[in-house]
Amino acid sequence: MAHLEYLNTCSRDAFVSALGGVFEHAPWVAEAAFPFRPFLTVAALHDAMMEAVRKAPDERQLAFVRGHPELGSKVGRTDLTHASKAEQGSLGLDRLSDEEFARFTRLNAAYRQRFVLPFVICVRRHTRDSILRNFERRSENDPDLEFETALEEIGLITRLRLVGSVDGPGKPQTDGWLSTHVLDTMDGKPAAGVRIELYEIGASARGLITQDVTNADGRTEEPLLSGGPLRIGTYELLFFVGPHFARLATADPPFLDIVPIRFAIAEPESHYHVPLLVTPWSYSTYRGS
Amino acid sequence: MAHLEYLNTCSRDAFVSALGGVFEHAPWVAEAAFPFRPFLTVAALHDAMMEAVRKAPDERQLAFVRGHPELGSKVGRTDLTHASKAEQGSLGLDRLSDEEFARFTRLNAAYRQRFVLPFVICVRRHTRDSILRNFERRSENDPDLEFETALEEIGLITRLRLVGSVDGPGKPQTDGWLSTHVLDTMDGKPAAGVRIELYEIGASARGLITQDVTNADGRTEEPLLSGGPLRIGTYELLFFVGPHFARLATADPPFLDIVPIRFAIAEPESHYHVPLLVTPWSYSTYRGS
Amino acid sequence: MAHLEYLNTCSRDAFVSALGGVFEHAPWVAEAAFPFRPFLTVAALHDAMMEAVRKAPDERQLAFVRGHPELGSKVGRTDLTHASKAEQGSLGLDRLSDEEFARFTRLNAAYRQRFVLPFVICVRRHTRDSILRNFERRSENDPDLEFETALEEIGLITRLRLVGSVDGPGKPQTDGWLSTHVLDTMDGKPAAGVRIELYEIGASARGLITQDVTNADGRTEEPLLSGGPLRIGTYELLFFVGPHFARLATADPPFLDIVPIRFAIAEPESHYHVPLLVTPWSYSTYRGS
Amino acid sequence: MAHLEYLNTCSRDAFVSALGGVFEHAPWVAEAAFPFRPFLTVAALHDAMMEAVRKAPDERQLAFVRGHPELGSKVGRTDLTHASKAEQGSLGLDRLSDEEFARFTRLNAAYRQRFVLPFVICVRRHTRDSILRNFERRSENDPDLEFETALEEIGLITRLRLVGSVDGPGKPQTDGWLSTHVLDTMDGKPAAGVRIELYEIGASARGLITQDVTNADGRTEEPLLSGGPLRIGTYELLFFVGPHFARLATADPPFLDIVPIRFAIAEPESHYHVPLLVTPWSYSTYRGS
Repeated sequence: MAHLEYLNTCSRDAFVSALGGVFEHAPWVAEAAFPFRPFLTVAALHDAMMEAVRKAPDERQLAFVRGHPELGSKVGRTDLTHASKAEQGSLGLDRLSDEEFARFTRLNAAYRQRFVLPFVICVRRHTRDSILRNFERRSENDPDLEFETALEEIGLITRLRLVGSVDGPGKPQTDGWLSTHVLDTMDGKPAAGVRIELYEIGASARGLITQDVTNADGRTEEPLLSGGPLRIGTYELLFFVGPHFARLATADPPFLDIVPIRFAIAEPESHYHVPLLVTPWSYSTYRGS
Repeated sequence: MAHLEYLNTCSRDAFVSALGGVFEHAPWVAEAAFPFRPFLTVAALHDAMMEAVRKAPDERQLAFVRGHPELGSKVGRTDLTHASKAEQGSLGLDRLSDEEFARFTRLNAAYRQRFVLPFVICVRRHTRDSILRNFERRSENDPDLEFETALEEIGLITRLRLVGSVDGPGKPQTDGWLSTHVLDTMDGKPAAGVRIELYEIGASARGLITQDVTNADGRTEEPLLSGGPLRIGTYELLFFVGPHFARLATADPPFLDIVPIRFAIAEPESHYHVPLLVTPWSYSTYRGS
Repeated sequence: MAHLEYLNTCSRDAFVSALGGVFEHAPWVAEAAFPFRPFLTVAALHDAMMEAVRKAPDERQLAFVRGHPELGSKVGRTDLTHASKAEQGSLGLDRLSDEEFARFTRLNAAYRQRFVLPFVICVRRHTRDSILRNFERRSENDPDLEFETALEEIGLITRLRLVGSVDGPGKPQTDGWLSTHVLDTMDGKPAAGVRIELYEIGASARGLITQDVTNADGRTEEPLLSGGPLRIGTYELLFFVGPHFARLATADPPFLDIVPIRFAIAEPESHYHVPLLVTPWSYSTYRGS
Repeated sequence: MAHLEYLNTCSRDAFVSALGGVFEHAPWVAEAAFPFRPFLTVAALHDAMMEAVRKAPDERQLAFVRGHPELGSKVGRTDLTHASKAEQGSLGLDRLSDEEFARFTRLNAAYRQRFVLPFVICVRRHTRDSILRNFERRSENDPDLEFETALEEIGLITRLRLVGSVDGPGKPQTDGWLSTHVLDTMDGKPAAGVRIELYEIGASARGLITQDVTNADGRTEEPLLSGGPLRIGTYELLFFVGPHFARLATADPPFLDIVPIRFAIAEPESHYHVPLLVTPWSYSTYRGS
């Protein structure tokens, strides 16, 4: 990983080479940003590169956007750069069923015909459901708005890559995290030992994402999700509170056993705290902080 | 439907005939209760009949319990009385899959071998899951306790039949009901127009049981379940709150869209009120009254 | 109490006489409404009378509003009609301290000087605090708006009088009520035997208004307030939950003992349901329905 | 402040002198603990000193307890050591009204007559109300239990002194703290800028203890109470939520303006987190963590 200080002082060639993976197949972006050194923050470097894209002649911008790989394309996948492959792979787009592959192929074809562009989206910020929803929505855009939207997505993609490859002050916030907390409001104490499961749900859901057990403070040792942007989509937390209250033998079967909390994440770079306040006969939840 | 007053004054033969369907194949039960007329309440009549069963000689009691049909028996079904057929049919025991049929057959066989009795349970108070759970639990009982349990179940079965066939004062409470209420605590007002779906869930779940939409008072016009005992089992209510808050455009997708409340019913003759207090970012529920 | 049917068919003199107490010192209001008979609802009769006021020549309207007694006037009180006396007395305006009397006298004088009107307000819809707040606010109005406001208050005053003196279909809703409910969400059951006290609070508060104890359903037998409009103002409910949870010996002293809920009533003709959902370590409340 | 390492290695005289202020007028306690050096933790040192007290001959224990000053004694106050003065002063026992002084004098006299002891209590863990409540309760004890209780209180007093005068590993937890958090569950965000006031309430309350305003995270920069044991007693938090929701103009006056949360602290060395989850029409609170 390069350090911002190095990028601020190295040669032009070294600068362009170090940033080559951020804007794929477009060394001219780094070249255009080079004269604006020094950059006080990583965010300022990214802004300068995006500014270079927006200031480029129309044909160059167009060629640049068109150079992006198609989403979920089986045919084109062999051409993917390493970066694009890893990003799409994280979503499981390389494991599409035949039906899903057909759906993506149809959407890609319709989109390409309408806009003469590949559909560009920052996949690391989305679940499959969210990508399909955006795909369908954006297919209704007028071409100018859609071109602007594609550039914004490229901004999000390259910001993530830059944060992953350059160290230094003023890194933009690209990580989100999901945490929880189980409070036994009957005893006024954290509920320890409660099993928690997190599922992604939706039309093309991935199923169980993670599971954990609450510690003495009613929390999990690590956030349920962290280490990158959260994926926009719908989730369900299952809290196995039955065993926690079993000693009370309140009812058979107990009124509450597995408590599901279904919620959506819309802001990938934010903190979502989704706690459970629970007694054997009641509970509440909220987006907390 | 006979009236208690009529039963208190009619001839012995009319009395026995009117109550013939309550204790199947056992007219001697009504005969033994006859001398204790008059009965001030329907409950007292039922108590007297159950007392007659318990006071009968052991062999008669045994023959009586053994006279009950096996649960979910395909072979024996043609022999079922009308009452038994209707009761088992309400649970869908006549629509068992081959696998479920095999499971019931195994359980029936093991139970019959251990206790030399058919497994008797008041099916109208149970879901299939609950019946299987009870079947497995009760198979561990010692024979005396299990015989007593079978008699108690017969008490529950016949109480339901009596309530269904005799009118008069002092009918025992055999109906339960499930109600709900959606309150928008952001506006301090009932949430009208919220779609609600009720599912039975579990290993051998029946799926969607009922659906409704909240009225201006945030309630459904009719209870979600009523008109008989509730069935012991696990349920999930889905509240479609997304459209209610859509005008606010709080997030895309909204934090809360479909709110699931999963709970168990353990007391078939009780009232379960399971409300939802909800804002776009929080909710709570409880067993209310 | 006259019946609407009678008023729709009686002589003009009887009509005017029967409605004489509704618009004080202004028989011309009833006279002007008379030709619009028959009235299908009590509300329609009231609308017709208010319409008569608004259609009257300016001088007559002015004289009519000026004919109203001053609020809390000690001097003028001997001149109050029976109706005005009872209404003001209900607020305790006849028991003002010297200081409060001085404050009212100052406000009355300033108001009369600015608007050349007595300050008219439907006292039965207000606490003293609310009257003072309205007095101060309305003193800032421009004269036209304030004259309109005075007419609206007369509409509220006479509507209450009409509802109190005429029976028949279509009575406007003039009553509000306050109810509560205590639910023990640790046990999933109503909390019975919980003492409740209701206070009016504020700068010139009246103190304890009512007290009660919850029944087996966790409610009070009667609403805490009812039988007329609620008074706009600030209130505090005290729920004595300590004894209810004492058997649990959760902490010494217990975390929750007397739970205060402070809230304001702003809509005198509405239902306020202010429940308490409580465990030994948590509670929630809301405006319910 | 001495360090445990120093105490583990210094001379006997230096040891006794350094610990002289912990057990007032009783250098023999430190002398008896000296041979058990080294102490691995501050807690172990305190345990050794208390063990020395409990192993001392009865007359010495008695003389030791009797050497403690009377609570709130005006006469005796000039004799108080520096430590006792500061501790009693923190409670305002030097600012007793005549009536309170009389009450303490009566309780002191009755207690002394019954037990031939001064009433010993660790005042820094109590409010005045709690002291009076304990005074009255303990006056009912049988003498042996009460002597044991006095020793336990001396343990609490000296533990606090030791923690205040000796540094080193394994200090016992003697601090508690009170924190809060205001969450706007209508917006799913912390409520910033909410004024909070904390009162001690009770028969002889001290009134406003502290006030603060929530920051961007809905919390106060510092705990509301910290830096020592919490005082057992009853408190009321006032949350001024009216201004936070004023822009919404939900009702006039708004349903919620100042929200009081009344609760008791029973464990001086614990963390009390008392949050408020609030919308314009609802709120909840709980002892959290």
